[in-house]
Amino acid sequence: MKNIEVCLTPALIDLYGVENKVVVVVDILRATSCMTTGLAHGVKSIIPVAGLEECRSLRNKGFIAAAERDGKMADGFDLGNSPFSYMDKSLVGKSVAMTTTNGTQAISKSGKAAEIIIGSFLNKTAVINYLLKQPNDILVLCAGWKGQVNLEDTLFAGALVEGMGKEFASENDSAMTAYTLYQAAKGDLSKFLSNSSHVCRLRKLNIIKDIEFCLQSDIYNIIPVLKKGELVKMEKNLESIAVK
Amino acid sequence: MKNIEVCLTPALIDLYGVENKVVVVVDILRATSCMTTGLAHGVKSIIPVAGLEECRSLRNKGFIAAAERDGKMADGFDLGNSPFSYMDKSLVGKSVAMTTTNGTQAISKSGKAAEIIIGSFLNKTAVINYLLKQPNDILVLCAGWKGQVNLEDTLFAGALVEGMGKEFASENDSAMTAYTLYQAAKGDLSKFLSNSSHVCRLRKLNIIKDIEFCLQSDIYNIIPVLKKGELVKMEKNLESIAVK
Repeated sequence: MKNIEVCLTPALIDLYGVENKVVVVVDILRATSCMTTGLAHGVKSIIPVAGLEECRSLRNKGFIAAAERDGKMADGFDLGNSPFSYMDKSLVGKSVAMTTTNGTQAISKSGKAAEIIIGSFLNKTAVINYLLKQPNDILVLCAGWKGQVNLEDTLFAGALVEGMGKEFASENDSAMTAYTLYQAAKGDLSKFLSNSSHVCRLRKLNIIKDIEFCLQSDIYNIIPVLKKGELVKMEKNLESIAVK
Repeated sequence: MKNIEVCLTPALIDLYGVENKVVVVVDILRATSCMTTGLAHGVKSIIPVAGLEECRSLRNKGFIAAAERDGKMADGFDLGNSPFSYMDKSLVGKSVAMTTTNGTQAISKSGKAAEIIIGSFLNKTAVINYLLKQPNDILVLCAGWKGQVNLEDTLFAGALVEGMGKEFASENDSAMTAYTLYQAAKGDLSKFLSNSSHVCRLRKLNIIKDIEFCLQSDIYNIIPVLKKGELVKMEKNLESIAVK
């Protein structure tokens, strides 16, 4: 039987191993929500890079460059980490280099995986439908916050565990923790998250509209997948889902 | 306001820091349950050591020595990791050197804390009553399983977060995760844990009686505290609680 595991923070990734697994990278607030939004709105590709310098050097080569540190847009870049800025028509057909505090670091730690895809509430059902057909084991990698566990990524991991239902085994206590947390929260994610550390941090930055946007389910029926170092829209025919 | 944080595995302890905090070390199945049981039944002290060799060398110096690896008693030692073996009358007034897969490692990582105490369901209310009077911040350190998060330690952390109520702030998402998990499980801990990885592992070793014992609340009104490298019964007058 295939297996689904949840790694609650990239700081624990070495305990799991990514070889031969499909890794779903999750950074709900806001990196993977932005990636999904951008590709859904016509961005050609997103190049995730771990460091600010690498991102700046891609900017110097002509790429549009997005950089977030500590919840804010870093100085000297074109974009920050708000999903709304990824809907801009000027980005259609363009490639965007992107670095964030947690999300792009998680991707860079998953290099040896069989496949790396991007998950968010915005494309939840598309991701679940795709994972259900996988021949490989699945590892959900939560980006967390600077190595610590966070609620919103854990909740989304729980949504994926729920989505795998009885098709996948889970002998992993983190998966059961995430699943249980999601059961407690799914009726009203915003309310449940209102006390989370990251939501409080973002609220201070007045990013309430971003948070509300990122907690919506199934806005987009696409899956970002990493191909040769760039996140692009998966070309496989995705099952049609009722997109809001 | 004082703060309670939860560190879900010793692999993440460097993200927290233990200085000036009371650290509650938790390894429900079974190290901290054994420590509590032993001191409650008259063991004079328990010397937690991280390695098998150090434990063996204390045995050669005349100490009774307990060693567990991978759920089983290690070869060449006097005791394993069953709480029932710590009730033996031959241990009354004696010091026991002890090493376990996870629990004693967690203690050794907390060296710089203001105080290190031992928590388990067996002495839950005694620990809560003591923590409520603390002037220091609290860090609950779950021993986990070989670096990974486990359910039973996370649940007990959640019980402590619940116990601190509104007296302590918790801006820590791990604490909220643990609290939520405990709310889902507290009605029937055994049932909730029946799918956990560690309970399945121990069941294969036929340690069902140990598991049932360790999940009982408030059997003992004592708190093991680390003094000069040895766990001893805390001498402060503990509030009387209704012990079963």
